[in-house]
Amino acid sequence: MTVDARKAQVIPVEASRYLDLVAGKLEATEKVFHRCLASDVPFVAAAGDYIFAGGGKRMRPALVLLTAQLLDRDGDEEVTYAAVVELIHNATLVHDDIIDQATLRRGRPSVNEVWGNSRTVLLGDWLYTTAMQMALSHGNLDVVRRLCTATLRMTEGELLSLESQGRAALSTQDYFRIIDRKTAELFAAAASLPALMEPVEPVHGKALERYGRSLGTCFQLVDDLLDFTALEDDLGKPVLSDLKEGKLTLPLILAMERIDAGRRRWVEWVLEDRAFHRATAEQILEIVHGEGTLDEVRELASGLAREATSELELLPPCDARDALEAAPHFVLHRRR
Amino acid sequence: MTVDARKAQVIPVEASRYLDLVAGKLEATEKVFHRCLASDVPFVAAAGDYIFAGGGKRMRPALVLLTAQLLDRDGDEEVTYAAVVELIHNATLVHDDIIDQATLRRGRPSVNEVWGNSRTVLLGDWLYTTAMQMALSHGNLDVVRRLCTATLRMTEGELLSLESQGRAALSTQDYFRIIDRKTAELFAAAASLPALMEPVEPVHGKALERYGRSLGTCFQLVDDLLDFTALEDDLGKPVLSDLKEGKLTLPLILAMERIDAGRRRWVEWVLEDRAFHRATAEQILEIVHGEGTLDEVRELASGLAREATSELELLPPCDARDALEAAPHFVLHRRR
Repeated sequence: MTVDARKAQVIPVEASRYLDLVAGKLEATEKVFHRCLASDVPFVAAAGDYIFAGGGKRMRPALVLLTAQLLDRDGDEEVTYAAVVELIHNATLVHDDIIDQATLRRGRPSVNEVWGNSRTVLLGDWLYTTAMQMALSHGNLDVVRRLCTATLRMTEGELLSLESQGRAALSTQDYFRIIDRKTAELFAAAASLPALMEPVEPVHGKALERYGRSLGTCFQLVDDLLDFTALEDDLGKPVLSDLKEGKLTLPLILAMERIDAGRRRWVEWVLEDRAFHRATAEQILEIVHGEGTLDEVRELASGLAREATSELELLPPCDARDALEAAPHFVLHRRR
Repeated sequence: MTVDARKAQVIPVEASRYLDLVAGKLEATEKVFHRCLASDVPFVAAAGDYIFAGGGKRMRPALVLLTAQLLDRDGDEEVTYAAVVELIHNATLVHDDIIDQATLRRGRPSVNEVWGNSRTVLLGDWLYTTAMQMALSHGNLDVVRRLCTATLRMTEGELLSLESQGRAALSTQDYFRIIDRKTAELFAAAASLPALMEPVEPVHGKALERYGRSLGTCFQLVDDLLDFTALEDDLGKPVLSDLKEGKLTLPLILAMERIDAGRRRWVEWVLEDRAFHRATAEQILEIVHGEGTLDEVRELASGLAREATSELELLPPCDARDALEAAPHFVLHRRR
């Protein structure tokens, strides 16, 4: 499948209208992203092409480019940072897939599945370092520092998630602590980077950080919902895969407090077995539907989407602001 | 064992005399190194303490500090960079140990052996990113860029090494291409970083890069020799472990071109089996002793040590220069 065909599948038509605002810059970002994956080490070049061809929603680059436009920046700098953010995102994905022993990513075999864990560890390192090297190219230290912090927080988030794996007693607080670092952090960084470019805009920067953080948290809640509700084909990976990886997400965390010990055992069995042996997928789905926690999580996600939008109120009204205001809506109603 | 006791074991008495020149700064580096391993994620804090307590020769920090003194720099900056270089070195070690499935490092169970591969992948990411974050703290972009390049080259070196694993037909050229990136690159960066500090000294910087590169190459040749000649106890890991990991190093590469097909098969068997099943360790040692390639490699290492020393001729004579001139001697005659 071509990148364009893949994108057409993942980006709803109504969102395309907003993305048209930064279409030229998104295209430039793709070029920079592809170019920086080049290497004289044959495996890196091959895996780089594979990752590029795999596409993706490019949400984080779009965030960088739209907030740059909102703040009236128009240069090469935001294009570089958009590519850097996508590089960092992909570096975390290849390492996370090793850890989760994931065999599928975006509907294709994962990098670790194709090339093995050893090469994939080093590819992740290479991607992270290439991202930093590119981020340095415009000489803006504050931007590089923000990206370093985001990368550190994401790594810590993944570690906290790993520590919680298999635990049936995860609290709502634990859950939000993990997804704040694992997912929301890079959204916050992406949305606020352009405020660190000259002329620096600290007040707008803070609002955009909060916007990105709410949007990222909303994104993760929806991601976790989709693991219960999506069709396998739509998602490019099996449903209920979180639970099978030993990860309890919000719909089940909320339900666990309310159900009887017998049904709690069903969940514990899947966490222990990492498979549906002693309890079935249907039984698990019955729990979240019965307790109504999918609807509750959707409600929480809606609240976060509204919070994100409200952060933009003090920013200058313009087409880019309209697009950023609409983004939470698309995140909320996405199907993959 | 305490860090001091461990260090006393690994640093020869005569070398200590030279290291006394930067004793205060080395101590400050240890403190910075230890402090930057702190984290609110319990595993990172525990693994950080474990790595710190494991000690190490701290050769790369010593290189940074001695060249800084040679160039008359005296501040906090070189201490930070010394700690950063040691952090990067340790990040590569923890990821390399995953890849090599190493169970021992510095005479103790490796991080992956204690905490498993998944956590160790993320710990490596955390160490790399913390290193970059610290490197940024003095606002010297050229230093951060040099460290990024070194990290990229090291990752590529490890990838090339991985690609060559199990290959019996490795050429001398392949070998040097790998060790230049895998080992010499960080020595070159460490030795030349202080020339990138204000006032920048491009000419001295180039000589120091070459010094570090020759010293690092020499260091790796000696490392590869020790894998044939050291006692297991001295090295903190089994002897002939390179071959058992499928890695052909220079003593065997040189011998392979000269021996008959029957003895070449011995080497190929160990590379295939990753164990001494069809050929014994004694048979392998017989090859390198019989062909005299250990002596040849030692001769090459001596040449590199002399080259390193000669690079310092144009630099101002002082105690630090004496120490840097003596360093190749210690690298050459080290026993671990």
